[in-house]
This record gives sequence, C-alpha cells and structure tokens, in this order.
Amino acid sequence: MKEKKEYIRRINSEIERINISGEPKELYKPIQYILNLKSKRVRPILSILGFELFDNKIEKIYKPSIAIEFFHNFTLIHDDIMDNATLRRGEKTVHEKWNKNIGVLSGDLLMIFAFKMLEDIDSDNLKEILKRFNDIAIKVCEGQQYDMNFEIEKKISEPDYINMIKLKTAVLIGFSLELGGLIANQKNEITTKLYKAGELMGIAFQLMDDHLDVFGNEKFGKKIGGDIISNKKTYLMIKLLEEANQDDLLLIEKWANIKNQSEEKINIITGLLKKYKVDLKSEKLTKEYFSKGMDILKDIPSKKDQLNYLKTFFENLLVRKN
Amino acid sequence: MKEKKEYIRRINSEIERINISGEPKELYKPIQYILNLKSKRVRPILSILGFELFDNKIEKIYKPSIAIEFFHNFTLIHDDIMDNATLRRGEKTVHEKWNKNIGVLSGDLLMIFAFKMLEDIDSDNLKEILKRFNDIAIKVCEGQQYDMNFEIEKKISEPDYINMIKLKTAVLIGFSLELGGLIANQKNEITTKLYKAGELMGIAFQLMDDHLDVFGNEKFGKKIGGDIISNKKTYLMIKLLEEANQDDLLLIEKWANIKNQSEEKINIITGLLKKYKVDLKSEKLTKEYFSKGMDILKDIPSKKDQLNYLKTFFENLLVRKN
Repeated sequence: MKEKKEYIRRINSEIERINISGEPKELYKPIQYILNLKSKRVRPILSILGFELFDNKIEKIYKPSIAIEFFHNFTLIHDDIMDNATLRRGEKTVHEKWNKNIGVLSGDLLMIFAFKMLEDIDSDNLKEILKRFNDIAIKVCEGQQYDMNFEIEKKISEPDYINMIKLKTAVLIGFSLELGGLIANQKNEITTKLYKAGELMGIAFQLMDDHLDVFGNEKFGKKIGGDIISNKKTYLMIKLLEEANQDDLLLIEKWANIKNQSEEKINIITGLLKKYKVDLKSEKLTKEYFSKGMDILKDIPSKKDQLNYLKTFFENLLVRKN
Repeated sequence: MKEKKEYIRRINSEIERINISGEPKELYKPIQYILNLKSKRVRPILSILGFELFDNKIEKIYKPSIAIEFFHNFTLIHDDIMDNATLRRGEKTVHEKWNKNIGVLSGDLLMIFAFKMLEDIDSDNLKEILKRFNDIAIKVCEGQQYDMNFEIEKKISEPDYINMIKLKTAVLIGFSLELGGLIANQKNEITTKLYKAGELMGIAFQLMDDHLDVFGNEKFGKKIGGDIISNKKTYLMIKLLEEANQDDLLLIEKWANIKNQSEEKINIITGLLKKYKVDLKSEKLTKEYFSKGMDILKDIPSKKDQLNYLKTFFENLLVRKN
C-alpha cells in the first residue's frame, strides 16, 4: 500500500517517460504544458487502485491508466476553448497561452495519444477495452454538448442535470476504475460493478463540487460563489428554482441579470438556498450517490486491504481533506 | 471489377447503415451533414482496392475503410475552423452552418467514431492496425500545424513544403491503401510497399491540385487562381520565389500586398510562373512522384486485373477525368 503522493509521483514519472514530444513544437508544447499543470491524477490513480484489487504486477496498468489521463486532458483543452475559460488549475488555459487554433489541434493530438496508450494492451483484451474506451469517450462528448445546451436553456430538470454530469464527468471516473479490472482480466460481472461504483461516486463528486462552490471555504482553492456570479445552472440553482415561491423567483431573476462580481448577489442567493434547505438537500443527494457506490464496492471479491484503501481514497476525495 | 460509381454507392450505403446518430442532436447533425456532402470517397475506395488485390471477401474491409473516411472528415471539420473557411465542397462548413464550438465538439466525436470503426478487426490484426492508425493520425496533425506555420513564415523551402503535404495529405492516402493489405493479412513487406506507393501518389495529387488551381480550367469545379489571390505558398509560388530575378521579386511582393479579388493579379503572377517555366517544373515533379508510386505498385504480387484496375484508378485521379 502506498501513499497517495507516491501514486501521483509514479504516474507523473510514467508520463515523463512516455515523453510526448516532436515537431512542430507549436503542437507539442501545449501538450507538455497541460500535462505538467499540478493535478491530483484522480483517474489514473483509480485505474491503478482498481487493478491492485486483483493483481500487483502494476506495470501492466500504467499505460492504460495514462490513456485516461490523456483523454481527460484533451477534454480540458477543448472544453476551455468552448467555455472561453482563461484559467485552468490556476494557470493560463492552452488557447489563452497560445491561441484557439493551437488549442484545437494540440487537443486533437492529445486525444490520439490517448489511443496510443492502449496499443500495448494484450491482444486478448484490446478489442473489448477499445470498445469500452470509445463508448465512454462518445458519452463524454455528449455530456459536454448537454452542458453547453443547458447554458441557453431556461429551465433544466433535476434528472436532466444528473444525466449531464453523469455523461460529462462520472462515466470517465467509472471507466477509470473498470479499466483496472479489465487489465487485471476480471470477468464482466466484476468490471461492471467497478464501473457502476465509479459512476455513482463521480456523480457524488460533481454534486459536492457544486455544493462547495457555494458552501465551501476558500482554502479549497476555488473562489467561493463563482457559480452564483456566473448564473451557472448547478444542482443547487435547479433545485432552488423548483422550490422558490413567486416573490423569491422574481428576486432570483433580478439578480440573474446583474452580471458584475457582487458580494451582495452571493449573499442573497446563498440565503435563499438556505431558506429552502437546498444546502441540506444537496448534501443528502450527494451522500445517497456516494453510499450507493460504496455499497457496490463492498460486494466485489478482491484483496481486503486494497479494497479498504480504495474506499478510503474515495472518502477523502469527497471531503477534500487532501 | 466494379465501376467507380458502384464503389461510391457501396461506401455511402455502408456509412448510412452505420448510422451515426444520437442525442444531443446538435452534436450528431453536423456529423451527418459533412458525411452527406458530395464526396469522391477516394480514401475508402483505395482501402477496398488495396484489399481486393488479395482477397474478395469485401465485407471485411468496409468498416476499416470507413474509419479512414471518418478520420478524414474529422480533419476537414477542424481544419475549416482553423482556416476560417466558409465553404466545403460547395456547401457551408460545419462551423459556419452551426458555430465553432459545435465544430470542435462534433469533430472530436467523429474522430472517436473513426476509432470505433476499428473495433471489429480480428484480434490478430487489431493491435498492429491501431498502432499504424495512431501513427498516421499523429502525422496528419503535424502536417496541419506545419501548414498553419507556413502561413506566417516568409520563406519556405521546397523540401519543407513537400514534407508538409506528405504529412497533411499523403500519409493518409498511403495508409488507405496499406490498410487494405493489412486487413487481407498481407505480410509487412507488401503492406509497406502499398503504403509507400500511396504516399508518393498522394504527394503527386497535392502537387497536381496546386497546379490545377492556376493552370486548370474552371470545369474542375474550383475557381481558378484562388491560391494566387490568397497568396498561398504552394509549390508553384515557392519555386517562383526561388527563381525570380530582383525586379520580378519586387513585382510579386507588390501584388502580394493587394488583397482584393483581381484578375490582373492572377494574370501577372500566372505570367511570371510561365516566364520561369514553373508550370513545366511542377508538371515534371508531379509526374516523377506519380511514376515512382506506379513503379512500386508494379512489384506487388497480386491479382493482375485488380492491380491494373488500381493503376487506372490512380491515373484517373491524377488527370481528374472523372
């Protein structure tokens, strides 16, 4: 059992060893840049932990786990273009540091390198894993499109929102864990459970992200209230719009049209969220998804200490202790 | 042996059968749109013809051949964004008909569907083909970046230009043919020849494209002189800049700064190209690449009538008879 920091160190040194580089430099530098931004490497760690539930020949899972990390970083580059984001992990986004064309093309290249990381998988496994990888990748794109669509839609239902974050975020978390089982040659019954557990956790993490954006405290690194300022339709706002009375709806609408950074806006909306107990509802829903995921994990026949380690890893992710 | 039209019909009906569709519609409609634009389907036809040199169980090559067509169309969507192109095959480009975000994301999705088309390849072959596909895909991205770099570079050498069109265009033509051989289980010695022949032909086709843009006639569908108007650094212009005397260089520079659509500009530059016999040099170089490609094909042990059909197909592509 290793420290989390040790996993991150190993993944980073593996990424360094792979050494994506070449000519023209304009195309490769942005890839090196985004891969070197400070990252918790959650997805590849999950693949490694999923693998270690069954097997300890850990070298077998490195490259496939990095396929997921590359794919994730490709989505970050392209999503940041689509969202006009200027900052990513506290640093300039790729299209901001270079330009949009370079963002599009270096993102494309990074996606191809994700597929390249699958090349060394045993022939017996490759076909099934490629299939799963493709299907997950398709869902991630669909999730991003729903996310963009929601920006211009007036009213979004709770199930639609949950479906969006499932596609955009949770399926790749689920697949990260599943991939560990697939590379460890586990049968379908088990890898499906790994996927499902990861997916439920992924939904819980995104709900928690939304929650912390309003109710967290600033030491978690993010400015509090950013989602409120930008009128982002998170679970909290969707629920608030469902519950609020006519007067409060008018108040919300009034503040929605005020675009500038305003402490007052944050305070008023946060007050309304509390008035309708949306904060408690959000915490409850998060815990529900999380517990469901944990319950599925319990059933997986695997090394006991490794399974406990994985559960602790998930718990720490949720409470953002580390 | 089938008519070329028959090959196109079969490929189109196979693409229809695959039926890329789903939700959200914003993401899938652009893919259906670009796949339905009138196209000669050169790449998948080459894969089929490459396969038919050795085997006639043609069903085996359909999906892999369409992987290449999907990949090619993905590059068209993203290249058009990067080049700010408004028209593609006489119709609006994807980002023009929808918007840039949808262009980026539907292009991403189409690339993933290209990989999806490889899923059914026999396990014995899949690993090698995935490797080759990835390596070719990487080169195509590199070629596009060089192409963009060249737009802002003042002087480009002939070898640099040839290298750029090789990466951007010819490697995928080469791989189209090679893929036919790979799916027909041909050994490395033969598939390498198929690749090399296709790559040389691909360079010849691009040189011919550049040539016809100035010296073709308008029935080929493209407006004559477009590259001259936009100061595109094609082989013709690179060669002209190498050969022209000081006075003519000044004349070229003067006209380069005149951006509007001008018959006079086209006439003057075309005159200079003829004065320095760049038209003849370009034809000569095209033929050299073409002949080298044909010579390699000659050596490939395969069905004689199929090989002749393939050669005729290449010849017709070069003279744009059909």
